[in-house]
Amino acid sequence: MAEQDPLNAWAAVQEIRKRSPLVHNITNYVVMNTSANAILAIGGSPVMAHAEEEMADMVALASVLVINIGTLSREWIKSMFKAAEHAAKRGIPIVLDPVGAGATPYRTRTVRELVAATRPTIIRGNASEIMALCGDGAKTKGVESTVVSPDAVGAARSLYGSLGSVICISGATDYIVGGEEVFRINNGHPMMTRVTGLGCTATVLCGAFAAVTPDPARATAQAMAVMGIAGEIAAERAEGPGTLQLYFLDALYRLTEDDIIRRIRMES
Amino acid sequence: MAEQDPLNAWAAVQEIRKRSPLVHNITNYVVMNTSANAILAIGGSPVMAHAEEEMADMVALASVLVINIGTLSREWIKSMFKAAEHAAKRGIPIVLDPVGAGATPYRTRTVRELVAATRPTIIRGNASEIMALCGDGAKTKGVESTVVSPDAVGAARSLYGSLGSVICISGATDYIVGGEEVFRINNGHPMMTRVTGLGCTATVLCGAFAAVTPDPARATAQAMAVMGIAGEIAAERAEGPGTLQLYFLDALYRLTEDDIIRRIRMES
Amino acid sequence: MAEQDPLNAWAAVQEIRKRSPLVHNITNYVVMNTSANAILAIGGSPVMAHAEEEMADMVALASVLVINIGTLSREWIKSMFKAAEHAAKRGIPIVLDPVGAGATPYRTRTVRELVAATRPTIIRGNASEIMALCGDGAKTKGVESTVVSPDAVGAARSLYGSLGSVICISGATDYIVGGEEVFRINNGHPMMTRVTGLGCTATVLCGAFAAVTPDPARATAQAMAVMGIAGEIAAERAEGPGTLQLYFLDALYRLTEDDIIRRIRMES
Repeated sequence: MAEQDPLNAWAAVQEIRKRSPLVHNITNYVVMNTSANAILAIGGSPVMAHAEEEMADMVALASVLVINIGTLSREWIKSMFKAAEHAAKRGIPIVLDPVGAGATPYRTRTVRELVAATRPTIIRGNASEIMALCGDGAKTKGVESTVVSPDAVGAARSLYGSLGSVICISGATDYIVGGEEVFRINNGHPMMTRVTGLGCTATVLCGAFAAVTPDPARATAQAMAVMGIAGEIAAERAEGPGTLQLYFLDALYRLTEDDIIRRIRMES
Repeated sequence: MAEQDPLNAWAAVQEIRKRSPLVHNITNYVVMNTSANAILAIGGSPVMAHAEEEMADMVALASVLVINIGTLSREWIKSMFKAAEHAAKRGIPIVLDPVGAGATPYRTRTVRELVAATRPTIIRGNASEIMALCGDGAKTKGVESTVVSPDAVGAARSLYGSLGSVICISGATDYIVGGEEVFRINNGHPMMTRVTGLGCTATVLCGAFAAVTPDPARATAQAMAVMGIAGEIAAERAEGPGTLQLYFLDALYRLTEDDIIRRIRMES
Repeated sequence: MAEQDPLNAWAAVQEIRKRSPLVHNITNYVVMNTSANAILAIGGSPVMAHAEEEMADMVALASVLVINIGTLSREWIKSMFKAAEHAAKRGIPIVLDPVGAGATPYRTRTVRELVAATRPTIIRGNASEIMALCGDGAKTKGVESTVVSPDAVGAARSLYGSLGSVICISGATDYIVGGEEVFRINNGHPMMTRVTGLGCTATVLCGAFAAVTPDPARATAQAMAVMGIAGEIAAERAEGPGTLQLYFLDALYRLTEDDIIRRIRMES
């Protein structure tokens, strides 16, 4: 079936539903609810916790750690470092979402320090966020961008080369750089950019798939494909971004092998 | 009509809609929006506030205080203690949700201190959270569990005996221990476990009902029955956890006496 | 077309969709997600950020600053002052939502200090919140009120006179005081009061419109009309406040000139 489901995404979905891995999130206030719901809908088990006092103990229970700096502040950053340190010790995957990197020096600096200290397994962002990690001085306007330029892919390659982190650049086409081959996923729908936090949702799905798929580049590609496919299914029924958001969760929950085989659009 | 609506839940719903009691919540970031919406949908008036500087004044306006430790941190815990102290002085009900108790020592310790200091009117949690309050060393995996073992009911009885708090264990069957009789509510739908924060929603509904029903065990049973009934109504139309969440709020808003009479499944 | 769209609201909607102005929000935890989604649905670009370290840099990117004190605390208040100071220097509009002013002395004091220090371009609240700003000692019960009394309009006039801020009092009829004329908007639907944070959504829409419409009184009236119209469209299909919330976002996203012309109900 490699022809039809080249990423073995369906096997991974089944594995998530069976094992219900605990995904520990230190994330932003805007998307906590929707991230938790996406993890539940695909079959995982979310926990949101940020108190420094319980970071070591919570990470000890988790199958994967997801860090998202969307509404960062001093105290939370301390917990991000502490959680990442314990995750690294335990050898569980660390997924980082550098929300708004490049928008302010505080964000850029924090994220670069996090990256240097934790060497995340996977980093998922939009093109300008990834370029900001690389010091390419791309200007970020808030948290949105759908353009993936060759420069951004170059930045991803360079980050992968120096850090060993799988780099995912989200956009109309998602690029996943994690070795020789680059996965390009063409699933998704433009209306998804009008729902807040779907980028952050993609990140937590990377976490859920990384908990069951040992190869992090493949796990990321699986997550981005499933994300885009669920978005397409939702967009067929949605009349706007309000209903899209809910139909998206329904689609994750109801996802079938047939959905994946019929819809996946990948190049590598 | 005691046959048909043995808890007089309908009278309580009407009373909430009429009086619109102010429910003061100190709760976690994940569920703030959905908790406020559930309180509004059933007819109450929610307020979310946590600044230590206004705890005394806000509690003074409230009909009930709901404390939920889901995303606990040092500063917020201080406010929880302060709010509970003022609620106790005023004699309004205190409802506690020990989210994730047992998952980390920080959570378990915090919740035990809160319980000892505030002697909540009602405590609602899942089986492992309730057992963690009791020192039975049950292991919590994140924030989910639907199994209610005889041990958990024993823990609830023991907590009720020592604290006088009504204890509600949520699960496929909800157990409410608050005196000689144990209420068992069999309403609800399995898909509800795939929506984040419906446990926390149950807790705020306990708060809304406790604001109008003087007997806290009865108030808790009313809340759990209404919760489960609204979930069943929603699940009949929902195609997944996304739409379930919204239809659930619609069902709370539209709830009729007939819904309760036709659907309530209680043993005591 | 002045007869039909007396506020030129349609031109403003088109302008928002074209320019996608960055709306910087320092707002409460309850409504962060829904506020961001409303800004995206109307065509703007939301950012939620509150760390003091990045206030100056984030405000420098924004077209408008929205401050909402819903879940205020010491650290966040510092950031509100700092952001407002930088917004004033840059000359971008500042929109303030005094959530719960009058409910506790801490809130009332904080909001009065914010108003005095920042002289917001627009202040939007319900009648009791606006009266609390004015020192009229109106009692606020939580965060709800739909009654707009002559006293409240008097308070708004007095605030406008002393501060120069456009004052919007939301209710069944919205009053916008910003000069000689008072705009009264009669759009909206009663079910909207059963969804948390729609007042806060109105405030962020004031922000989005103020980013493209130079006259702040007109911008506020445009926002309140669009808000009410989208709510009416949503209420025609919704079966309760759950679905209303989503259909509202869909309606913002799909809004047409015809919707505005056919539905706007304004007196001035």
